Amino acid sequence: MLKKEKLDETALIKYIEKLSLETQKFNKSLIVESIGDDCAVIEDKKKILVSSDSITENVHFNLGPYDFDEVGKKSLLVNLSDIAAMGGIPRLFLLSLFIPPYIETADIKQLLRGIIAEAKKYRVSLIGGNISSASELSVSITIIGDCKGEGIRRFNSKSGNAVYVSGELGNSWMAFYLNSNKNSIFKNRRNLKPEDKKLIADFIDKYKLPEPRINLGKKLFDKMLANSLTDVSDGIFKDIFNVIGKGCGCEIKIEDVPVNRDLKKIVRILGIKDYMDKVVSFGEDYELLWTFDREYTKKELSELSDSCGAGIKKIGYIDDKPANLAFLKNGVPFVPQNFTFRHIQL
Amino acid sequence: MLKKEKLDETALIKYIEKLSLETQKFNKSLIVESIGDDCAVIEDKKKILVSSDSITENVHFNLGPYDFDEVGKKSLLVNLSDIAAMGGIPRLFLLSLFIPPYIETADIKQLLRGIIAEAKKYRVSLIGGNISSASELSVSITIIGDCKGEGIRRFNSKSGNAVYVSGELGNSWMAFYLNSNKNSIFKNRRNLKPEDKKLIADFIDKYKLPEPRINLGKKLFDKMLANSLTDVSDGIFKDIFNVIGKGCGCEIKIEDVPVNRDLKKIVRILGIKDYMDKVVSFGEDYELLWTFDREYTKKELSELSDSCGAGIKKIGYIDDKPANLAFLKNGVPFVPQNFTFRHIQL
Repeated sequence: MLKKEKLDETALIKYIEKLSLETQKFNKSLIVESIGDDCAVIEDKKKILVSSDSITENVHFNLGPYDFDEVGKKSLLVNLSDIAAMGGIPRLFLLSLFIPPYIETADIKQLLRGIIAEAKKYRVSLIGGNISSASELSVSITIIGDCKGEGIRRFNSKSGNAVYVSGELGNSWMAFYLNSNKNSIFKNRRNLKPEDKKLIADFIDKYKLPEPRINLGKKLFDKMLANSLTDVSDGIFKDIFNVIGKGCGCEIKIEDVPVNRDLKKIVRILGIKDYMDKVVSFGEDYELLWTFDREYTKKELSELSDSCGAGIKKIGYIDDKPANLAFLKNGVPFVPQNFTFRHIQL
Repeated sequence: MLKKEKLDETALIKYIEKLSLETQKFNKSLIVESIGDDCAVIEDKKKILVSSDSITENVHFNLGPYDFDEVGKKSLLVNLSDIAAMGGIPRLFLLSLFIPPYIETADIKQLLRGIIAEAKKYRVSLIGGNISSASELSVSITIIGDCKGEGIRRFNSKSGNAVYVSGELGNSWMAFYLNSNKNSIFKNRRNLKPEDKKLIADFIDKYKLPEPRINLGKKLFDKMLANSLTDVSDGIFKDIFNVIGKGCGCEIKIEDVPVNRDLKKIVRILGIKDYMDKVVSFGEDYELLWTFDREYTKKELSELSDSCGAGIKKIGYIDDKPANLAFLKNGVPFVPQNFTFRHIQL
């Protein structure tokens, strides 16, 4: 038993090392030495961005509805989003795998291929990490990016600034909900039309993994079009706090929060109540959320939108009333029900 | 229940942030932005060393015999050793905590104070990380160091090079063995003299945490006194492979492997058999292991020894017989019994 594990781990390291080579060509000039020594050695003349984030079985995902390669993909994508949320470019990463005994080597390889597929798509290079036994599956990644300046910070907005968000919120929640419940939905709701089923299946496919907004973040930085920037990982209801400047508050109209048309259709079909509660509090959207000291021109809006292939929406204003920090629904203060935090980052 | 967890985590982040400030003064010029934004921002004109390592409950430690602050200390020390094993200076770190529900906030705070105590001792700064729920306690750290050059690599030795090791091997094994079994040792062995008991208790105290050889690593680099360097994390029987150059082998005399005098005494007192098997294969020593193209002069030896407050010992030679890679015991090839890997790093 121990011998088997030993052989597997050594083989796994070789496998990871081989896969990492496929990613290292993207950042050759930064990588002096990578996997195989006590440390990786890197060299970067710009400011360096560094962040770590972990996903854990039963906390951030359940193995039932998700494939191993999807778990791998997501573990990298959430980290890429942290670099996007500074306006930087992700370059390198380290991977810590916690592997429980009930997971087969083939599954871990699938997870790794998921990570590497996204690494290639976003041109980031695997340069180190470690493997540990554990009682459940966790993937912890440290992402290293760079930036010509110091990146776009949080908490930097002033009264009167406009608040913008990219894409649509709630898609990750809906995809997660549908994916986790699809068997019971398809079985128990006999009145579902074939086109409804297709709508649901397509929605899961399209939105079960987030898309880090790297190009948008970079555009905001390069064109100096944001004074505070973060990503929506915990739900906009919480993440909004991260762009509000000292002594300020904000006013966000729930009606202006961008929501997917198909999500609304599915909400109607399945009779889901109070869906906006989830849209603003479930999180895992990994859209960008930022402020700017004036409203964008049409040209700026379309440029920003083009950079990420998604809409850009003004959803409210920063004001000077810190006590008045509020989401409004039909003009009345709004707090989502069952509001919980799922994710914590230092 | 959920509400409690939420409050705890938010308070915990604040607590970590406060502790991190105590460490950030050590590397002010490198830290542009730390905890509180989407990424930390760093700036380093030298080559940057980066490595991650994790320790997990029931794999790398058991909570029974170890205090939480010792678990915290160890999680940082093993990472510092990776920087030492390149000849670099550790500067910054990110911390990923995986916290199971059965651990109290007070215990996590104790663990954090352990980490911060070592961070202060070695002047490294906490700049980011994340917290996740989990079913067992894990601590994953990414360490960032720097180096004037590219560090001292592995696999770089040539036939005829001398092999050196710092300190003594097996102390971590013996401290772990004694600490894990001290109740039964003290209870079942009525013939133990008071001075034997004191010897055992002192040994545990002194060696249950490793001492990363940062000053020694830096000295080896600055004075160009090593051509291959690593740390002994998996046991010298495995780690020796990391300093052997291409097409080479080595000859290590087991009799020359430095072993603590008190360890030998305890082995005699407790009647432990084949202890050298454990000394060369248990690992967790975090001593440095390296090669050089000639033997050191007496002056060099004493300088290196002074840099780390521990002995430096020549234990063998690199040769040109890759098939002949061997530990010799009384001139006969030697393989430790029950040889297992406990630790894997990419």
